Amino acid sequence: MLVQTINSTRLQQRIKALAQIGKIGETGVCRLSLSKEDRQAVELVRGWMKEAGMATRIDHFGNLIGRLEGRNPDLPVLMLGSHIDSQPYGGRFDGTIGVLGAIEVVQSMHEQHIVPEVPIEVVSFCDEEGCRFNKGIFGVRGITGKLEEGELERTDSNGVTRRQALLDFGCDPAKFKESEYLEGSIGAFLEMHIEQGPILDNLNEPIGIVTGISGPLWLTVEMTGFAGHAGSVPMSMRRDALVGASKAIIALNEIAKQDSKAPSVGTVGHLQVFPNSRNIIPEKVTFTIDLRDIDLDRRNAYENELRTIIDQIAKENGLKYSIKEDTNSEPRYCADWIKDIIRNKSKKQGLNPPELMSGPFHDSLAMSYACDYGMIFVRCKDGISHNPKEYATFEDIAIGTEVLYQTAIQMAKKMKG
Amino acid sequence: MLVQTINSTRLQQRIKALAQIGKIGETGVCRLSLSKEDRQAVELVRGWMKEAGMATRIDHFGNLIGRLEGRNPDLPVLMLGSHIDSQPYGGRFDGTIGVLGAIEVVQSMHEQHIVPEVPIEVVSFCDEEGCRFNKGIFGVRGITGKLEEGELERTDSNGVTRRQALLDFGCDPAKFKESEYLEGSIGAFLEMHIEQGPILDNLNEPIGIVTGISGPLWLTVEMTGFAGHAGSVPMSMRRDALVGASKAIIALNEIAKQDSKAPSVGTVGHLQVFPNSRNIIPEKVTFTIDLRDIDLDRRNAYENELRTIIDQIAKENGLKYSIKEDTNSEPRYCADWIKDIIRNKSKKQGLNPPELMSGPFHDSLAMSYACDYGMIFVRCKDGISHNPKEYATFEDIAIGTEVLYQTAIQMAKKMKG
Repeated sequence: MLVQTINSTRLQQRIKALAQIGKIGETGVCRLSLSKEDRQAVELVRGWMKEAGMATRIDHFGNLIGRLEGRNPDLPVLMLGSHIDSQPYGGRFDGTIGVLGAIEVVQSMHEQHIVPEVPIEVVSFCDEEGCRFNKGIFGVRGITGKLEEGELERTDSNGVTRRQALLDFGCDPAKFKESEYLEGSIGAFLEMHIEQGPILDNLNEPIGIVTGISGPLWLTVEMTGFAGHAGSVPMSMRRDALVGASKAIIALNEIAKQDSKAPSVGTVGHLQVFPNSRNIIPEKVTFTIDLRDIDLDRRNAYENELRTIIDQIAKENGLKYSIKEDTNSEPRYCADWIKDIIRNKSKKQGLNPPELMSGPFHDSLAMSYACDYGMIFVRCKDGISHNPKEYATFEDIAIGTEVLYQTAIQMAKKMKG
Repeated sequence: MLVQTINSTRLQQRIKALAQIGKIGETGVCRLSLSKEDRQAVELVRGWMKEAGMATRIDHFGNLIGRLEGRNPDLPVLMLGSHIDSQPYGGRFDGTIGVLGAIEVVQSMHEQHIVPEVPIEVVSFCDEEGCRFNKGIFGVRGITGKLEEGELERTDSNGVTRRQALLDFGCDPAKFKESEYLEGSIGAFLEMHIEQGPILDNLNEPIGIVTGISGPLWLTVEMTGFAGHAGSVPMSMRRDALVGASKAIIALNEIAKQDSKAPSVGTVGHLQVFPNSRNIIPEKVTFTIDLRDIDLDRRNAYENELRTIIDQIAKENGLKYSIKEDTNSEPRYCADWIKDIIRNKSKKQGLNPPELMSGPFHDSLAMSYACDYGMIFVRCKDGISHNPKEYATFEDIAIGTEVLYQTAIQMAKKMKG
């Protein structure tokens, strides 16, 4: 790095301190959205926002928002941020480096006596991961008016609704409107995130410029057969929902890997058997489908293939089934002007970051419907993420944060218009 | 029925009353072993045993035992009974008709002023089903000295050990020895049970004579891959434990049905995914195998086939695996002299019950290692069992209980020796 304005030691300390909350094993984190651990983490991060010179608030969607006033307080804000909730078996870097990096950016501006042209807001968005209520990017969709019907009635594995979880968190769903942003009031969004894939690691590059996000298709499939005693119902008379589900899982795997050059990915990550007793034939199996592709046409074709096969499997195995669509996101591309600034600022640091697509979605995906956005990826060891082994070096994070800092200042200048 | 000594109205009322405890839906029962519901049911049944003229006790294995003294109190006992614990999604007849039928037998003898030649004990055995701690027929194995190491440390899905569950039930595992039966002290065992299969229903026969029980092989398989983000790990780099498990499930299904004339059955009834989040590649999948056959050689051959295929699947998918054997029972055949008495007594009722094997195991399976045993099957509608839809008519149950009554008296005479 040719120039380092940001305080990488402070940033490193904060990343380590945040990783203590919801810590599992040596390096893992379980900090589910709107949980007690999440709340504790929000309070810790809120303190750092204040240290950085920001006015803070928690809105009714559960977002933590810090604001640094700009020279022109009425201009659309430059928003920076990401999330601090984690997967149940997650790592220390996913989301958190985007929030703590953005706070570091603002604190460095504050220390450098830089007053940005437009207001800057750093947001730690509520429930990006979506694993608790099976639907994510909640906070961004909240402030941009994109929540869907029934979202508050979704339940977690303990039967707690999102509405109750928000109330317990201190939020009031009846006041959502107060927390929405007016159209046009967010000028642009910039997010730093670990890559969560192996590309930068393979290319030996510390950071990359994201070109777009291939949004996921999320389905929930329920297959229903008929329970019976595992010892007495002849094989020929069985309607075993788990045998059907297994065939669908293998079919999805085959579909997603049929073109070895394409980045298509298909995953069944969640599955539940009912009644789940060893000597009873499974009556009902519920499982999720996660299908992603940069090419929407190909993804749609794969979805159709899968639906056809599930229908066949159900018929052949005497099963009923239903398929529910939970999320259907199209690929969303980053703004050229932001990519240009990231590229220029990187070059001044002696870097030549590669451009790459993002398979995972991020808060940016939902933000892309409200404003232009840009993303900086930080190298992620072996591409491992959503796993306690997830790792990014503090050197790489510091490089990313310095580019984030330089880019944010330049974006704020440009946004003055 | 040509003769009816037993009180079928009373028996019907008791079956209905017992079905209220742990009732789910209109006709289902969830009465897990050693649960509060189980305890409540034991107290209810104990009251009926007393009404029937029996001295009652609950032993340290959690068995409820009622004793009707015989003319020769020192002779080996004739034991009658079954169980009243149920599957989590079970029915009203499995096990219960064997316990309540046996109480009806003793109460009828009492009312007829019949004093049996040998003592008769009616036992409601603890944890036949095995679904709570993944290993069943606990009570019978307890009194016959066949418990295995580590059984008390087995945990249920809430992490409660069997030891703790027994203590909570009022039993003392330190005093197990006091509750064991001396070798030779049980003269014979007789059990009435619903068939849990479709054979009697297809033949339109109310009852059947069991020839033997094809004991199950129970394995637990754990497959381990590597978690990663569902959106970014290329298909070619994945080690998805659920894809591996799905292939094993389909393989077992194919193995068990390869000979359409054989009664072999293979089932995966229980499966758990870790971390079970929709956008994470499954790292670990644990699932059970239930494999049964009347022909032990064929079952062993199928087990070997399965083990070979699981090994291949693991290699091809980059997975590690382990296979644990939970239960391995060989087929056990009923005593000819008891079958003869059942057949003779049935004929006197104008019945000609068919002989049939049992796929499901029963308390009799473990009892067969301690003494001669016989079983009467009662027709089960559509062969449906381990399901709230499980159904047997009260007429059929009364027929079975009358034959049980006549058979028990004759067995007691014969056992006097």
